[in-house]
This record gives sequence, structure tokens and C-alpha cells, in this order.
Amino acid sequence: MQLIDGKQTAATIKAEIKAEVESIAARGGKRPHLAAILVGHDGGSETYVHNKVLACEACGFHSTLLRFESDITEQQLLVEVEKLNRDDSVDGFIVQLPLPKHISEQKVIEAIDYRKDVDGFHPINVGRMAIGLPCYISATPKGILELLRRYNIPTSGKKCVILGRSNIVGKPMAQLMMQKQYGDSTVTVCHSRSKTLKEECLQADIIIAAIGQPAFLKADMVKPGVVVIDVGTTRVPDATRKSGFRLCGDVDFENVAPLCSYITPVPGGVGPMTICMLMLNTLAAAKHLYY
Amino acid sequence: MQLIDGKQTAATIKAEIKAEVESIAARGGKRPHLAAILVGHDGGSETYVHNKVLACEACGFHSTLLRFESDITEQQLLVEVEKLNRDDSVDGFIVQLPLPKHISEQKVIEAIDYRKDVDGFHPINVGRMAIGLPCYISATPKGILELLRRYNIPTSGKKCVILGRSNIVGKPMAQLMMQKQYGDSTVTVCHSRSKTLKEECLQADIIIAAIGQPAFLKADMVKPGVVVIDVGTTRVPDATRKSGFRLCGDVDFENVAPLCSYITPVPGGVGPMTICMLMLNTLAAAKHLYY
Repeated sequence: MQLIDGKQTAATIKAEIKAEVESIAARGGKRPHLAAILVGHDGGSETYVHNKVLACEACGFHSTLLRFESDITEQQLLVEVEKLNRDDSVDGFIVQLPLPKHISEQKVIEAIDYRKDVDGFHPINVGRMAIGLPCYISATPKGILELLRRYNIPTSGKKCVILGRSNIVGKPMAQLMMQKQYGDSTVTVCHSRSKTLKEECLQADIIIAAIGQPAFLKADMVKPGVVVIDVGTTRVPDATRKSGFRLCGDVDFENVAPLCSYITPVPGGVGPMTICMLMLNTLAAAKHLYY
Repeated sequence: MQLIDGKQTAATIKAEIKAEVESIAARGGKRPHLAAILVGHDGGSETYVHNKVLACEACGFHSTLLRFESDITEQQLLVEVEKLNRDDSVDGFIVQLPLPKHISEQKVIEAIDYRKDVDGFHPINVGRMAIGLPCYISATPKGILELLRRYNIPTSGKKCVILGRSNIVGKPMAQLMMQKQYGDSTVTVCHSRSKTLKEECLQADIIIAAIGQPAFLKADMVKPGVVVIDVGTTRVPDATRKSGFRLCGDVDFENVAPLCSYITPVPGGVGPMTICMLMLNTLAAAKHLYY
């Protein structure tokens, strides 16, 4: 069993990005510039955005953080989005989710110029990904593809079972894993209504668990040699931790890991890759790689 | 074994549309207006567009056919698309594919205002479908959903195997069949590289064959009681026919049909539904149902 080290891989990729950015800067080029809009003071969102700003620094990017109070109106927020759309100094930007309930997240996402939509959430990017055109791929699925690639895990023709059908993981992951240019796998998507979930998992060469239920995937559901990617990050109360909780994946790691050829830990697997993929998308935006 | 009669179902739906349109017209409302752009004189395209115009008449729609010679430049065609985008009298329009090689089909598709894109090929519509938002769903997948629905075939929790991963059938079909609001199935997509295609098919409750190989799905690949939807329409030379060919599906119908609970014939199954779904999308456009 080999552990897939997302933390180390992310560090390597960030160093690669940094080297490329310094080489661009040395040739007199412009550093990539990521802007982030943060509305309100949600603790999780503060942490995520802070980490994104730190990642920008690590990669040699410019970053701009725009903060608004949670009573900003939808109309005002749309005006701010439009300003960033028109600001030529900004290569890409994100609006940190969730937004306050009086604001339509979908409306805000669709207001972002798709050419600056480095989160890859705009329907144009979702649609272009689905039909195999160049586009920003959202961070979690892109990070998983990158881990599989960097660990030279064969995917072509393999049976890949995806647990969960969310818009941000399960569905895009399925679309990518089935495409010739990405996974080229035989893809099965299982969810809460699937009657044959266990049978599907038992036949899988690769399982991507994104179902949001701690320790859902058990040892009696996998075949020996399986590759397991664990996207789950449920906070489970834990009095022994300073924070009062620990992160728990969708996989019963202790019992499943010995059966695997490769497995991602939680934390330290898929998680660290996501911000790093945002950096790759921002670099792509600065280079006008897709648009 | 019950035959799924696409021809009869399409006739029923067209009659339903016609009744609704006449009721709209009787209240002084505007009849839906579909425009079609046809470039060149390809025989297949001529027939398709002609049938679309006839379907408009059958449904009580206005239709406009814009014809251009095959030496029209991409720029000129984009100007024509823009005219239709701006023409308030036109509810929806299509550009008949394929286009001459000097014109980028993707560029033309993306130039269509997504709110008039009744073919559902614009990336915004593809993306909105993928994430479950209201949108135009392209004709073939929409027609298959409609057949399953009208024949009361249970799909929730069932194992649905899709053969083929094309952008116009396999991929959207997978996205729809996995979503709670449409198929709610456990979906597996197989293709030319799949090593376990036969095993997947043997476990399937529903098989949607869109692989483009005549009589690909054999009797020893299905379990008794399976539902088979055949999307294949390969022209096979046949000297006994006036036309010199016959349409051959992806299913070895003669031997597979006796094992099925339901099966679509070729021709007369999925085929007749497609133009009818274009009519439904045009009606939705006229009613501003999605946008």
C-alpha cells in the first residue's frame, strides 16, 4: 500500500508555479493576479480565503482581497463582480462561497466573466469541460486528476466508481474520468439511491468517495489492489484535539488502507491540492491558456 | 416484451403541442417561431431541415428557413446568427450541422444566444444541464427521457449502462440519468476502451446503446427483463431497398428483443422523437420557460 501524499504533491506544484512565475517576471512579464471577494465573517470562509492569499504569495502572484459586510445587497455585489470583470489588471477572481441567504449564488457565479472564472463554476466552464473543450476545471476534480497523473496510476479502461453526485465533485469527476483525454475509464456513479452500490465498489479498480458520510466505505466493499481517493472532510467532535474536532474522510481508512494499492489520507490527501489547483487556473488565466 | 413506439409517442406529443399552440393563438398569443439556417446542399441536412419545417407546420408554429451557399464565410454566417439573436420575432433557432470545413462549428454554436439555443448545444445549456438548472436539453437525450417517462419505466436506483461517450448522446445521457430530478439511476458509461463492457451490460436494468456499431449488443450481453434503448442509426447497404440501404441499430434486435421487458426498434424508436423534442424546446422558448 502506497500513501498518496497530497501535501507533498501540492508543495511540489507550488514550487513549479513559483519557478515559472519568476521566469515570467525575469523576462519583464506580469505576475498573475488573483482577486477574491469575501462577504461577511464566516470562520471557514475566512480561513479558506486567508490560505488562498498565502498560496498566492508562495507562488509569486499578486493578490487582492475585497471584503464586504454581510448586509451587502445582491445588486451591489453584482456591481463589484462587474468591476473585476472589467479590471484588466485582474487575471482571475473568485467569490468565496457560501454567500448570505439574500444573495443568489448562482446569479453571482453567472455574472463572472467566464474567462476570469478560475473556480470553474460558471456554466460555460462546466459545459466546456463536459464536451472536452479547454476550460477552467474546478479545484477538487482537477486536483484528483493531478494526483492520479503524478502517481502514474493507470486509469484507461479501468473501472472507476464515484460515490456521490454533487455538482462540485461527483458529477464533474464522472465527466472527466470518462473522457479519453482525461481518465478514459469505465465510470460508474453511485449515490444514496443506488441499489447495487456495494457490488459496484467490489468490482472497482478506482474508487473516488465523495458522499459526505464518515467512514462510509468499509473493507468488505473493496477488492484487493484498489486505488481509493477520499474526498470526504466531515468534522467529527474530538475532545482530545485543541480545535475540538478532527477531519474524517468517507473511507474507513484503518481497515481499507491495507487492501489498497494506493490511498489518499484525510487530512493530507485531496484537501491540500485544491488551493494549489486554483493557483494553476490563475496561472492559466494570466497566460490566456484557454481563452 | 413490449415495443417502445417512438413514432406513435412523437405523434401524440406533436398533437399535444399543437393543442397548446392553438389555445395560445385563440387567446391572442403569438405562435412559436423557429428559424433554421441551412448551409450548402448536403442531402441528409436537406432532409432533416425539411422534416423540421414540416414538424413546425404540424405543431402550428411559424418557421423560417434561411439558406446559404456553402461558400459563405464564417464571418458572414456569424453575422446571420447575430441577426437571429436580435430578431424578437424569432423564439429559437438552429444552425443545421455539419457545416463546411472552413467554418468552425464550435464558434458558430457559441455565437448563438443561449436563450434561443433550442438545439441545446451551447456550452451554457450543456453546463446548466450538468448542474441541474433549467435549460434546453438536446433532442436525443431529451427524447429518450420522454420515452422512459411515457412508458412508466422505473429508473430510480436502477443500474443504467450507457454504451458510447459522444457529446450529443452518451455524455448528456449519463448526466441526465444520474440526476435525482431525471433518471436517478446508478449510471455506468462504457466505451471502446472499457475492459468490462460485457459484465457491465449483463448487470444492467437499462441499456442505452449509442456506440455507432450495427448489432453491437448481442443476446449473451443482457439479462432477462432488461430495458434496451437503441440510438444507433448506421446506414447498411441493402440492394432490396429502393434507397439502397437500411437503417441498422446498435442492437442485434432479433435475438435481444425476446429477452427484453421493453425495447426500441430501429427505425421507429428514438429517431422520431428527436424533431419532436426540438418542437418542445421551441415551445419552451416561446413561453420563456427557462430564460
